[in-house]
Amino acid sequence: MNPQVLLSVLLVISTVHSFQYKELVQHVDNHQEEYVEALREWVAIESDSSNVLKRPDLHRMMETTAQKLRLMGGTVELVDIGEQELPNGQTLALPKVVTATFGTDPNKHTVCVYGHVDVQPAKLEDGWATDPYNLTDINGNLYGRGASDNKAPVLAWIHAVEAYQALSMELPVNVKFVIEGMEETGSNGLDAMILAQRDTFFSDVDYIIISDCGWLSRRPALTYGTRGNCYFFAEVEGPKQDLHSGVYGGTVIEPMTDLIGILDTLISPSGKILIPGIREAVAPLSDEEWKMYQDIQFDMDSYKNKIGVTQLMYSNKVDLLAHMWRYPTVSVHGIEGAFSDSGSKTVIPAKVTAKFSIRQVPNMDPAMVKKQVTDYLHSVFAKRKSPNKLKVTMVIGAKPWLADTQHPLYEAGKAAVKRVFDMDPDLIREGGTIPIARTFQDVTGKSIIMMPIGGFDDGLHSQNEKMSRYNYIEGTKLFIAYLNEVSQIKKTSV
Amino acid sequence: MNPQVLLSVLLVISTVHSFQYKELVQHVDNHQEEYVEALREWVAIESDSSNVLKRPDLHRMMETTAQKLRLMGGTVELVDIGEQELPNGQTLALPKVVTATFGTDPNKHTVCVYGHVDVQPAKLEDGWATDPYNLTDINGNLYGRGASDNKAPVLAWIHAVEAYQALSMELPVNVKFVIEGMEETGSNGLDAMILAQRDTFFSDVDYIIISDCGWLSRRPALTYGTRGNCYFFAEVEGPKQDLHSGVYGGTVIEPMTDLIGILDTLISPSGKILIPGIREAVAPLSDEEWKMYQDIQFDMDSYKNKIGVTQLMYSNKVDLLAHMWRYPTVSVHGIEGAFSDSGSKTVIPAKVTAKFSIRQVPNMDPAMVKKQVTDYLHSVFAKRKSPNKLKVTMVIGAKPWLADTQHPLYEAGKAAVKRVFDMDPDLIREGGTIPIARTFQDVTGKSIIMMPIGGFDDGLHSQNEKMSRYNYIEGTKLFIAYLNEVSQIKKTSV
Repeated sequence: MNPQVLLSVLLVISTVHSFQYKELVQHVDNHQEEYVEALREWVAIESDSSNVLKRPDLHRMMETTAQKLRLMGGTVELVDIGEQELPNGQTLALPKVVTATFGTDPNKHTVCVYGHVDVQPAKLEDGWATDPYNLTDINGNLYGRGASDNKAPVLAWIHAVEAYQALSMELPVNVKFVIEGMEETGSNGLDAMILAQRDTFFSDVDYIIISDCGWLSRRPALTYGTRGNCYFFAEVEGPKQDLHSGVYGGTVIEPMTDLIGILDTLISPSGKILIPGIREAVAPLSDEEWKMYQDIQFDMDSYKNKIGVTQLMYSNKVDLLAHMWRYPTVSVHGIEGAFSDSGSKTVIPAKVTAKFSIRQVPNMDPAMVKKQVTDYLHSVFAKRKSPNKLKVTMVIGAKPWLADTQHPLYEAGKAAVKRVFDMDPDLIREGGTIPIARTFQDVTGKSIIMMPIGGFDDGLHSQNEKMSRYNYIEGTKLFIAYLNEVSQIKKTSV
Repeated sequence: MNPQVLLSVLLVISTVHSFQYKELVQHVDNHQEEYVEALREWVAIESDSSNVLKRPDLHRMMETTAQKLRLMGGTVELVDIGEQELPNGQTLALPKVVTATFGTDPNKHTVCVYGHVDVQPAKLEDGWATDPYNLTDINGNLYGRGASDNKAPVLAWIHAVEAYQALSMELPVNVKFVIEGMEETGSNGLDAMILAQRDTFFSDVDYIIISDCGWLSRRPALTYGTRGNCYFFAEVEGPKQDLHSGVYGGTVIEPMTDLIGILDTLISPSGKILIPGIREAVAPLSDEEWKMYQDIQFDMDSYKNKIGVTQLMYSNKVDLLAHMWRYPTVSVHGIEGAFSDSGSKTVIPAKVTAKFSIRQVPNMDPAMVKKQVTDYLHSVFAKRKSPNKLKVTMVIGAKPWLADTQHPLYEAGKAAVKRVFDMDPDLIREGGTIPIARTFQDVTGKSIIMMPIGGFDDGLHSQNEKMSRYNYIEGTKLFIAYLNEVSQIKKTSV
């Protein structure tokens, strides 16, 4: 045994012995009203990153976050990431990124917790039962915009560190934070900031932890993969301006008819993608995967109830989970340029742009998908012999992300879940895209774990978003336990 | 010859002898700057009937119209037609309908001129080269919202009457006006008003004249038919709320995919309507009709240039005109409930409603079309085996209108055109719907003529709407001449 390894082992032993989990849990339970109060203060700040009029609130949110971390003694920076250009050509300062460091002991692992404190838009009139910016506790659920996505998880991480501090316990690992304010609109400026600080702030980071997703059921979960996304615009342009459908209908080849014609060739009623080459690129489902999905606790009926449908695309659990996580799909989001208001209008829209996206999974390659989709749509369009012009562009090409569930980081996660909830976590994937995971992986080369504490029914991006008190408080305990588990990972397995 | 007929003949002779056309034309030419000024004043009133915030302007427009007719000595009424209900449940007073009567001589024919003084919305930012509410004369074209649709034609009729008065000439016929302020949003309240006054204001009306359309080329035209319109909503409803396409894509049967699938079965790329029964109901094109279309002056190239396309649905004139006027077509106007903004959004819309319409021609029957479309879409939808719910509703069912071009009213029109322009008019139809023509016909049983003075390139409902000075001034002369021609129709042929 060389001295380095010996040191690690000794460290591990000393950490294990000094971990006073019960006291920490007691502290959390004793302070839960304060935690809810802290969440209430954060939810009250309308940090909607998509609304330029709310930018002052968003700046205040970043400052509030930084101040909280400063008061805890962290080394805090508000990193200027520049400006964003608005469609009208004006520029607007981006919210600064908060970085914080707690501990720089070179003998400890260093984790970096990523989170965001901006939110999706929300208005009472959208159908909220309560004021979305006034956290409201109803039967143990804390309703408010951003409660689950992502303010409570960020606070839970902060409170986890605070608990160690309050009990004068040494943090088992060094903890860094990187908290942004533009996640809901595409993390504008964050990639460049990560790249710029790769050899400074991120240089001593061993692991990156993301808690920006949710469980699959009432059972805790660890997330080991996300789908990527290729987002397309298909624009069909005809007459030079919108025409009256009474006056011109029957004489012009209408762009909407063409667009509908090509959109109808993307996917079959049974969910089969019709674009040549897409399905062939997908990694086959292995027996191990099948077994893993089979073992996951997932209630098809409650899933159906949650989304309010009587029938899903697949009637058995494994097929459904596989198509949620590890197969691609096509969604048509809408059409720009056509009549979209209520009421009736007799217009032939001159230029219409469909927005659709194809979820990406291993081993699809966005560059290849771009070519496959573009070539296919042009060939389908050519058969129509239309004089209109088709333009296909891919505006987002985000790769999928997949982790090794046998990695010590995940083993540590399983142990932490076991300790707090006395059960094994579901190992799940996320159908959506969390591009920052891929960026962290590509830029820093570090291992990443996604450790959600949000509930399966939190209504992210929807009306009546909530975080349950249970998930918030037990989630804080999970993070406390996880910091300890990570400290026991052998240094060599970084 | 019975005394009644003898009287008619004598009247006709006396009228012919007293018609001082040259003096009237001279008067019009001498006063054209005043006419333009009058149009400028009317265009300056933003009488947008679709914008509830502009309702005070619309009321002012009706009052201005009434006042002009009062000052000319007409018997004028502002008829209260009640209120409209807004989507939010509030009510708003409808603009009153202006009726006016000039002359009640029972020995003369009585014509009733229909027009409207409300306009479509217009904003400089929409792409207008000039302020849409400040009439601007550029190279003899008078640009402004409502200039052609329908303020200048209404003023031309008023000035025609005024010219007779100014020269102390007796009007050859009694002239009535019915001017409304809700045409652009569906003539709310007008049908009921016509029905209510059928046996009073309309009882002595012999002919109804509508000048709310345009020529086909630079040659003057008389319009003898309009297409009707059946406007449908096809709603596909799935999940109870919008879903994140990353999280749920692949597991739900998406309403947009279903909707696109059924919309794609309405019409072929070559313009063939695929709904069973529709084409079979259309009256066959007669040889006479073919000949008539063949003789119409219509430049395919300038039509293509006007709308900015390189290719039309049909490459020969007769086919094109026939499909513009006397064949049905399907236009998909847009989709409500899907993502329609610029940018990208990863949403699975929960409920999407397509808006499409089918133009109606003889001998289609809206009630039958409703059944054909509804049955067909449900059968196509059923084949998809989707759990989503389809609801098809017909929100407008307007019948086509067709006049007899040999009727004395049209013969009088041809004679008036010949006198003013020294050429024969094109006999044309209108692809769009003018529902009020059908109402007048059904309720009053009177004959109707459409006598347009708008140019073929006036840009109705579009940016940079204009009325040329030429059409405005020569149109006024046409109306003067037409009043005289109508007076010569034998009373028996009413």
